[in-house]
Amino acid sequence: MPYKEKFAIIVAGGKGLRMGSAVPKQFLPLAGMPVIYYSVKAFMDAFPGINLVLVLPEDHLSYAQILLEAFTEDRIELTIVTGGETRFHSVQNGLKQVDKESIVFVHDAVRPLVTTQLLQRCYEQALEKGSAIPAIPVADSMRIIDGDSSKPTDREQMRLIQTPQTFRSDIILPAFQQEYNASFTDEATVCEASGTKIFLAEGERSNIKVTTPEDMIIAGALLNERMNDA
Amino acid sequence: MPYKEKFAIIVAGGKGLRMGSAVPKQFLPLAGMPVIYYSVKAFMDAFPGINLVLVLPEDHLSYAQILLEAFTEDRIELTIVTGGETRFHSVQNGLKQVDKESIVFVHDAVRPLVTTQLLQRCYEQALEKGSAIPAIPVADSMRIIDGDSSKPTDREQMRLIQTPQTFRSDIILPAFQQEYNASFTDEATVCEASGTKIFLAEGERSNIKVTTPEDMIIAGALLNERMNDA
Repeated sequence: MPYKEKFAIIVAGGKGLRMGSAVPKQFLPLAGMPVIYYSVKAFMDAFPGINLVLVLPEDHLSYAQILLEAFTEDRIELTIVTGGETRFHSVQNGLKQVDKESIVFVHDAVRPLVTTQLLQRCYEQALEKGSAIPAIPVADSMRIIDGDSSKPTDREQMRLIQTPQTFRSDIILPAFQQEYNASFTDEATVCEASGTKIFLAEGERSNIKVTTPEDMIIAGALLNERMNDA
Repeated sequence: MPYKEKFAIIVAGGKGLRMGSAVPKQFLPLAGMPVIYYSVKAFMDAFPGINLVLVLPEDHLSYAQILLEAFTEDRIELTIVTGGETRFHSVQNGLKQVDKESIVFVHDAVRPLVTTQLLQRCYEQALEKGSAIPAIPVADSMRIIDGDSSKPTDREQMRLIQTPQTFRSDIILPAFQQEYNASFTDEATVCEASGTKIFLAEGERSNIKVTTPEDMIIAGALLNERMNDA
């Protein structure tokens, strides 16, 4: 078993300005806990002993305390690194913690609804194929904006991309040695630019990215529902 | 005031097969009421006296009873018409009920989370500009599937299209006199094909289309949250 370690790089790079709040959105309370608590917990539940790396903007480092305080019942070991100029640079900093021969998950801190099943699915596929990029089909019609006009576009071939973007270390580590390019919008595009074919995996519609106050309401409703079911 | 009447054409054309259930999904129970109840109620609350037209597949006509029974406290007047081969034909049948000089909403029965605010916004804009097609930006990265491969695409210009697609009658009625074309995927594309420029309006992220069992859970959680707030 060559890929014996697991690393979850949780990227909390956003400044939270869109929420109209002083506290970065990944640390806002959601169903009683900070947003970021839920994805950290999901990784710990799915893979006991996983190495957790939290990437935070330098001026947000003190917020890590909010996360640590949320883990009163679980023993948590967390490596905190500072973020960079772009998501690429932030993930690059996180990857410095990663051992060779690992499976590496890169996850948005603002996707609190990630499930154990999705994490397991990404892990299995990355082990087998080298990567697992969770994706879901688009349920709505789509249009492309063109100036003050717009035109329809076919949604059938479109996929919405989620996280954790999951890779074997021998794929993601060399890819992040490249020089930064503005086309690097996520980890998949970085790995592709280094010549690797990436593989999509089945995502989950509930695995939403919390970017607006309305998303907070949706995420809170879903978390309450899960807690009631548990 | 030339556009004195309002018509809501609620399209419940799907056969609900994707839910793995014998009952069409628009009639499945959600937070204690059938899915379709909520959008009908939203139109009634936003516009008392609005003309409600429900388009149902011929073999689903008996399900209308489920909807009528849900309105025990509100007096409801509903015109039921049978659907056609495609969404175009179903909407065409519904439009036969529409008077000239009206504002016409065409709404998916499986979007139960539409709000009074969104309906009002669409109404005002359609009155002023002729149409209002609710749209939201895409929060996730996007890729386009190409055989067994995929490539990244820019999400910035992409919009997810919702309903109610809302029009002045002098725009939508003549557009639906056209012969059917396979490019008619929604009402906006039909009106464009007849030479009208259509106008997007600000949609709502919570206004989801319920197409899978996971969507039912999301919609149920959101409805419970709204009822608790009310």
